[in-house]
Amino acid sequence: MQITGVLIPVPTPFDDRDRVDTGRLRRALEKWNARPLSGIVVLGTTGEAALMDDFESDQAIVAARDVVPRDRRFIVGTGRESTQAAIKASKRAAEHGADAVLVRTPGFYKSQMTNDAFVRHYTAVADASPVPVLLYNFTAVTGVNLLPAAVARLATHPNIAGMKESGGDIAQIADLVSNTPKDFIVLAGSAATFYPALCVGAVGGILALGCAAPDACVRLFELFRAGRHDEAVALQRELVPLARLVGPTHGIPGLKAALNLLGYDVGAPRPPLAPVADAVLPVLREALARFEEIPA
Amino acid sequence: MQITGVLIPVPTPFDDRDRVDTGRLRRALEKWNARPLSGIVVLGTTGEAALMDDFESDQAIVAARDVVPRDRRFIVGTGRESTQAAIKASKRAAEHGADAVLVRTPGFYKSQMTNDAFVRHYTAVADASPVPVLLYNFTAVTGVNLLPAAVARLATHPNIAGMKESGGDIAQIADLVSNTPKDFIVLAGSAATFYPALCVGAVGGILALGCAAPDACVRLFELFRAGRHDEAVALQRELVPLARLVGPTHGIPGLKAALNLLGYDVGAPRPPLAPVADAVLPVLREALARFEEIPA
Amino acid sequence: MQITGVLIPVPTPFDDRDRVDTGRLRRALEKWNARPLSGIVVLGTTGEAALMDDFESDQAIVAARDVVPRDRRFIVGTGRESTQAAIKASKRAAEHGADAVLVRTPGFYKSQMTNDAFVRHYTAVADASPVPVLLYNFTAVTGVNLLPAAVARLATHPNIAGMKESGGDIAQIADLVSNTPKDFIVLAGSAATFYPALCVGAVGGILALGCAAPDACVRLFELFRAGRHDEAVALQRELVPLARLVGPTHGIPGLKAALNLLGYDVGAPRPPLAPVADAVLPVLREALARFEEIPA
Amino acid sequence: MQITGVLIPVPTPFDDRDRVDTGRLRRALEKWNARPLSGIVVLGTTGEAALMDDFESDQAIVAARDVVPRDRRFIVGTGRESTQAAIKASKRAAEHGADAVLVRTPGFYKSQMTNDAFVRHYTAVADASPVPVLLYNFTAVTGVNLLPAAVARLATHPNIAGMKESGGDIAQIADLVSNTPKDFIVLAGSAATFYPALCVGAVGGILALGCAAPDACVRLFELFRAGRHDEAVALQRELVPLARLVGPTHGIPGLKAALNLLGYDVGAPRPPLAPVADAVLPVLREALARFEEIPA
Repeated sequence: MQITGVLIPVPTPFDDRDRVDTGRLRRALEKWNARPLSGIVVLGTTGEAALMDDFESDQAIVAARDVVPRDRRFIVGTGRESTQAAIKASKRAAEHGADAVLVRTPGFYKSQMTNDAFVRHYTAVADASPVPVLLYNFTAVTGVNLLPAAVARLATHPNIAGMKESGGDIAQIADLVSNTPKDFIVLAGSAATFYPALCVGAVGGILALGCAAPDACVRLFELFRAGRHDEAVALQRELVPLARLVGPTHGIPGLKAALNLLGYDVGAPRPPLAPVADAVLPVLREALARFEEIPA
Repeated sequence: MQITGVLIPVPTPFDDRDRVDTGRLRRALEKWNARPLSGIVVLGTTGEAALMDDFESDQAIVAARDVVPRDRRFIVGTGRESTQAAIKASKRAAEHGADAVLVRTPGFYKSQMTNDAFVRHYTAVADASPVPVLLYNFTAVTGVNLLPAAVARLATHPNIAGMKESGGDIAQIADLVSNTPKDFIVLAGSAATFYPALCVGAVGGILALGCAAPDACVRLFELFRAGRHDEAVALQRELVPLARLVGPTHGIPGLKAALNLLGYDVGAPRPPLAPVADAVLPVLREALARFEEIPA
Repeated sequence: MQITGVLIPVPTPFDDRDRVDTGRLRRALEKWNARPLSGIVVLGTTGEAALMDDFESDQAIVAARDVVPRDRRFIVGTGRESTQAAIKASKRAAEHGADAVLVRTPGFYKSQMTNDAFVRHYTAVADASPVPVLLYNFTAVTGVNLLPAAVARLATHPNIAGMKESGGDIAQIADLVSNTPKDFIVLAGSAATFYPALCVGAVGGILALGCAAPDACVRLFELFRAGRHDEAVALQRELVPLARLVGPTHGIPGLKAALNLLGYDVGAPRPPLAPVADAVLPVLREALARFEEIPA
Repeated sequence: MQITGVLIPVPTPFDDRDRVDTGRLRRALEKWNARPLSGIVVLGTTGEAALMDDFESDQAIVAARDVVPRDRRFIVGTGRESTQAAIKASKRAAEHGADAVLVRTPGFYKSQMTNDAFVRHYTAVADASPVPVLLYNFTAVTGVNLLPAAVARLATHPNIAGMKESGGDIAQIADLVSNTPKDFIVLAGSAATFYPALCVGAVGGILALGCAAPDACVRLFELFRAGRHDEAVALQRELVPLARLVGPTHGIPGLKAALNLLGYDVGAPRPPLAPVADAVLPVLREALARFEEIPA
């Protein structure tokens, strides 16, 4: 398995009765199909997977699989707190056509989440999963840190293909790259540090920002690959404010609002998440307008 | 609704194929029935609820309801990340006979978990729940903090009866007590600070330590009520080492190991949790022996 | 050495050219002499000692020693980052008449501040100091934590008399008490948790709040001693808002503003600290008025 | 003023009676003079300045000024907790021949260290300093964060030439660069992220690692400048383990031990710092041997 370039973790639309809206999900995915993205991740953190049940998860997978072209990576988030639930979710995702599963670390029982616990968990999942496993570390959300030392042990598993690291600690990303075999895929999850992550050896990114500004993110990746570092640095800097708005500052509500402004019609986040305040919309609009055309 | 004294959050036994073992749950509960506890909480943090699915949750509730006497509080943990899932879980728990539900804060999308978000979430749950709601804050696990300011707003809801605060910050517990009506029930969740929590106005505790040392925990509560503060302080101090062992230090694996030593037969924790190392057992045994008789 | 009751860490007045103003320091101390306080601490955290040089420190000590009655404890803060500087400062303080020195942990090189480092540092200081040493832990300021395990080792030193713990973690205070000999003096530093600290074995407090509300703090201590716990709890709760205002919320600028409102004339804090905004004054005034008469 | 390339923050040798040893400082500096470094910083964090008094500081400055060639930058650390002390130290450093002063943020009264406080502090220091001022942010040590928003305000001051940022948060370094004028000098302080910091616009570094591996650090800088990014990435990765050993892992004791192995004769750290355990020496030796010849 090879993954490179920019993949996007797509949000899950809900209808006005708070049910998964697969129609809107399909239409949004069709719009992204027109962009030079390398792949699609459903049911990631951005997909509000943590707020959905297993039946809803299956609905989203099936709908998305149908629309995502076969020449793009189709990856499904299957992280769960228990090992057996992560295995079941990974098997279901594979049945429904996932090319790979992205398995967020468990993090509820923080003090017990040692390197050994992570190695046991991921080994069991990778042993059972019919498709390749990508590890997924997102410390800001989970409160635990999947350290390079544990990843080094897991990277030799034949069914563990790579990792998404959502933290902005570039030294940690550098460690991940240098502690793993050459073909272990390290993907960045933080758009605000995508370029320096590429500098230290990440081969691509799964970027929420890529939902809102796909061409700019892909262009940043291409500039890096072409060795045009000054332009890459300049573009990275330009992207940071928007990355912040749809990331740490306003989270999924911010991303959904941005996508709605761009015509993707992804609706509101699921409670307890709430739409951004109206005052945020002009700020989002201005930040988006630097990268995308905004429908009137 | 009135709750006072010591309640215990019971662990969930799993069998050797990692399935909920309701037989062992019943037998363990019968043993606790012989102790002077005020109530039982199933599917709390200690119950590994975060590692169980909805079907398994129902199994545990039904089995426990059957065994817990009617004159003791029977409380079910129904916290979920999404508001609608917390509502569904609370309704199911009520149908199965819960006296109240204990609803842990959502915490996955940390940066969005503002006071307003918590107020919306709990108001919706309390509006829909057929039985009284207890708020539940456990910052060490969730990474978010349900602050006294938000609790003050929620405490006026007619179906929100009280709160479990698992943190050891006594000033925060004092604030909870002073910012809420007189009949709002504040329960401590940290055994290592149970006595000072009572000093500042908590009316009881939901204590994992109470599973392993029920009589000692109840005695601490009674000493406080009788104004025998010196003895209470002395007993509190004695309890701290064991509270640490089955709490922050070894977590649920530690508590399950302790209970197995005491003859409760609650089995191993569910992966990715793992049993404690053998070297921990004599340490647990020694700490337990100060409070309970250990079968040969 | 015996210390009990309420001591206060007095602020250092500066004149309008940012020099130590010993005249105002003397006059303020004379006012406090009329209150039932057990002692005075100069050059503590509240005394802005971290912003003063050695010459200025000597000025403050000499002036204060002259005014503080012999029947009250006169304690001087002599914490420094280097062991040799802490020793020199402690010797100077003793020469100038300190009854004891209060030695804050070094904390600059955080990652090196192990238990062993603290034991070496304090042992060297206590070996050299002509007067008894009080350990001093204030994690919120120093970023390091002098743990009960290290204190237990130090408490057997014949010239280490006790400790001030400024954190609000009551379990840690309980541990300090239970891990040290009976005559080891544990003093609380956080007014917002003074009462629960007394409950778990602290024998007094060094409380910045005591500068602004001395009688109330002493009354809280006396209520505890008399076993009148309900009244103590009520008074503790009443004190929390003011404790916050002159503590975590507005710090030394808040305390100096409060004292100026009460007629102590302690001037402005030293830059980079700045006086509180004018809008804070009515808030302080209202909180103070519950405990002290405010001159017109 | 222009600064670029690699500067090193030199340690301060102490003799066996714990006094500043200017003879050894001179000899060490002479050895570094043979390396392609852009400049020398005395009395930085690495120089144990926090453990030295003003007299000792002057000794170190005078001795170093004498040895550092005029064509290299000679920078003196003059950070103090009080504004007036930072001003005095900066004036003294200028009198003794500093080309610029490096002024660490005050950080003791953390909750009061707002953007406004930093702007006031640094404006006062820069107004008074006879030589250009470099801001200095080292959150891991001070516990406070000099944010890009405050730096943007300070960067327009005619006597504030630039900044050393010791954190590894590359997004923050990118923000510093993009929020300040083109000629504002941003220097990295973390060797483990030197290369990505250069990628986002830092123009050089003040690197403790540069004391131990000067040629390798300069080579990393030159590779970046030449656009040889693959080689730069590879070298950066190679340097990380040593950077960790003489940085976060063993701190100044680790760096001093490494330098002693290399023949610099910088002695032991000042108490409460202690030399590294003997077991660390072979680890250091092995990590050093990849970059420098180790005398037998």
